[in-house]
Amino acid sequence: MLAEIVAIGSELLTPYRQDTNSLFLTERLNQLGIDVAFKTIVGDSRQHLTRAAGIAFSRADVIIFMGGLGPTEDDLTREAVADALGLELHRDQQLLDSLEQRFASRKIRMTPNNAKQADLIAGATILPNPVGSAVGQWLTGTFDECEKIILLLPGPPHELKRMFDEQCRERLHAKLPRAFIATRELRIGMMAESAADARVAPIYQRYTDVQTTILAGAGEVQLHLKTCADSPEKAQQRVDQLALELENELGDAVFSSQGETMEQIVGLYLQMRGATLAAAESCTGGLLAERITSIAGSSRYFAGGAVVYSNQLKTKFAGVPAELIKQHGAVSREVAARLAEGIRAKCKATFGVGITGIAGPTGGTPEKPVGLVFHALASEGSTDVIERTFPGDRKRIRWFASQQALDMVRRKLI
Amino acid sequence: MLAEIVAIGSELLTPYRQDTNSLFLTERLNQLGIDVAFKTIVGDSRQHLTRAAGIAFSRADVIIFMGGLGPTEDDLTREAVADALGLELHRDQQLLDSLEQRFASRKIRMTPNNAKQADLIAGATILPNPVGSAVGQWLTGTFDECEKIILLLPGPPHELKRMFDEQCRERLHAKLPRAFIATRELRIGMMAESAADARVAPIYQRYTDVQTTILAGAGEVQLHLKTCADSPEKAQQRVDQLALELENELGDAVFSSQGETMEQIVGLYLQMRGATLAAAESCTGGLLAERITSIAGSSRYFAGGAVVYSNQLKTKFAGVPAELIKQHGAVSREVAARLAEGIRAKCKATFGVGITGIAGPTGGTPEKPVGLVFHALASEGSTDVIERTFPGDRKRIRWFASQQALDMVRRKLI
Repeated sequence: MLAEIVAIGSELLTPYRQDTNSLFLTERLNQLGIDVAFKTIVGDSRQHLTRAAGIAFSRADVIIFMGGLGPTEDDLTREAVADALGLELHRDQQLLDSLEQRFASRKIRMTPNNAKQADLIAGATILPNPVGSAVGQWLTGTFDECEKIILLLPGPPHELKRMFDEQCRERLHAKLPRAFIATRELRIGMMAESAADARVAPIYQRYTDVQTTILAGAGEVQLHLKTCADSPEKAQQRVDQLALELENELGDAVFSSQGETMEQIVGLYLQMRGATLAAAESCTGGLLAERITSIAGSSRYFAGGAVVYSNQLKTKFAGVPAELIKQHGAVSREVAARLAEGIRAKCKATFGVGITGIAGPTGGTPEKPVGLVFHALASEGSTDVIERTFPGDRKRIRWFASQQALDMVRRKLI
Repeated sequence: MLAEIVAIGSELLTPYRQDTNSLFLTERLNQLGIDVAFKTIVGDSRQHLTRAAGIAFSRADVIIFMGGLGPTEDDLTREAVADALGLELHRDQQLLDSLEQRFASRKIRMTPNNAKQADLIAGATILPNPVGSAVGQWLTGTFDECEKIILLLPGPPHELKRMFDEQCRERLHAKLPRAFIATRELRIGMMAESAADARVAPIYQRYTDVQTTILAGAGEVQLHLKTCADSPEKAQQRVDQLALELENELGDAVFSSQGETMEQIVGLYLQMRGATLAAAESCTGGLLAERITSIAGSSRYFAGGAVVYSNQLKTKFAGVPAELIKQHGAVSREVAARLAEGIRAKCKATFGVGITGIAGPTGGTPEKPVGLVFHALASEGSTDVIERTFPGDRKRIRWFASQQALDMVRRKLI
């Protein structure tokens, strides 16, 4: 069963805005066993939209239109879809009344253009919108001798997501052959995509019934597993079995077995151990602290940190002797170690992290090139340092460095 | 002149990956006076792709295909486009030789599948790829009695961008009626979109020849201006004139007159004044420092900072008296001011910023709800504090707070 997602809005055809709803919808459709075969993005032109709708009806089984359901002249989805299907629009009196009530309850007069939000395509079912004025529409029927399911959903993400989950998922499920999807997501830290794939390909290739997708980012490889079976248990068992084999192969390089982020996992481990963390960051400039504290509840395990760009602050906030910096340079194994030890002591934390490096684009030398970063982890009685030279631009190098430091903490806590 | 961008790759139809090249291409096409009317995303299916290509040829004048030019079985763009146009593919011997040389120079044997990267659509011009093995193709001609321009570009962003800028832009320009586009981007800090629009709409609505797009994010409203004229000077003069009127209306709420980010502007102002900044952050957890240090060269004006989640660290790193915290609470006007003053003194900086608030989702009370943030700016002889209650989730509240703090610094430096 194939789906097409049609995103409507001229703003989605500018350099500034992009459809993101379709990622959400794709995930939900995939869970129901429906593949997305096409996405179309079209502006607020009735002619373009009518033609795009006709094309979608001719090539997909489930067609979801997003956006263009508001009250303005530019909102033309209802009209265009009706045109493409050769169906009439009629104004629903009950819907019109409830729109008027909605305005009256806020003591605003409803302007006439709002009335078009009560226009329904013949045969459509209303999908009420608890968080907005534009209702959605659900339409099934035989078009060109094929059974089609057609959804009109509002564009604002929080309206669309709620409407889909509360009113469309079950309806769609009831229309489908009984099949159940199970998924798993493993994440691997600080390993190149090619190295990871070389190890896992011989395993996942044996599971011809499980779809495995490999995606790589800075310091992270994701393995997305998906399968379909005639019972939820059977499907789950199959992806779990593959996940287990992959975890056995990769060992503790796998940091996440359910798709959690690195900062979530580190937070989880710290909390389980009742441990706390502090960080002194030079080249990452607060990125590590920002990632850790982006997690709600992180105040329970993140003591605090310092952003120590200057040598004086390395001394003041993390107790690095000025002499040591003079001797080895600010970007050195020794300074990283003392940053970690010093911040740990100052913050009275279980663990201290120190990061110093050259994020670029300038500041590199032949001996200490852009991308060189020292990561240190200090704990009771010992300090480990990892030296890495990362590729990429300033943003990528900083991300790599924060990921490496988090991975050190994670491995310490395993 | 209308364009369609066709992004090819089954990974773009998963919940995990999204086409982003089209934003770059849209910007470039707009600069040339070409509007993007459709975007299509299609997987690695020859049948689907051939049909999508045919549809694109029937509704657009400039059609850009991205991706599917590699050596694997899934790379089918050449074949599908040739099919849709009813043209032959032929293997280019010179291109094949250079591919073989490319492999030989790296001492790798070229596997047979790579040869298909030398297949050209009849009549196409080769677009060499200096940073990858897949060449692009440029094809113009009359199809269905209309003049079409067809580009096949590689999918990896750095290959695509370079190929477009170095080899396609001028070629396209030469094919177009002589028209010149000029753009400007103004950014407004800490003003609601509706408030900004109410003030600027009467102005930009008079400029019917300039297209004005308003976009809003947390703590920021962007005004994108675009116009087209028969000389570059005339076009530029028109957008500059509108920009000036808008700036006059909005005054110093406009922080950026050429699309610079808030952190770039603050950095620029600090450098111009030879001033330095330090920050003590509680609820933003390093986000402010991270944003400032994301700018290359920020070590010249960012002294450093502290992430002070715990009360003890507020005292230790920023010298906030424990008694003051006890009396007013960690989230208070008084503590924000002392954080700013303390970190300024510790870091010997010209300015000190202090941020304390409740990012949520928990920790709020009726008196101090989630979203309440105090922002302080300390300078020689004075400290200002701004109290705000921001809407949204943890991420949005933290972003708002960092933006408010940066805006305080900016206004101090005007």
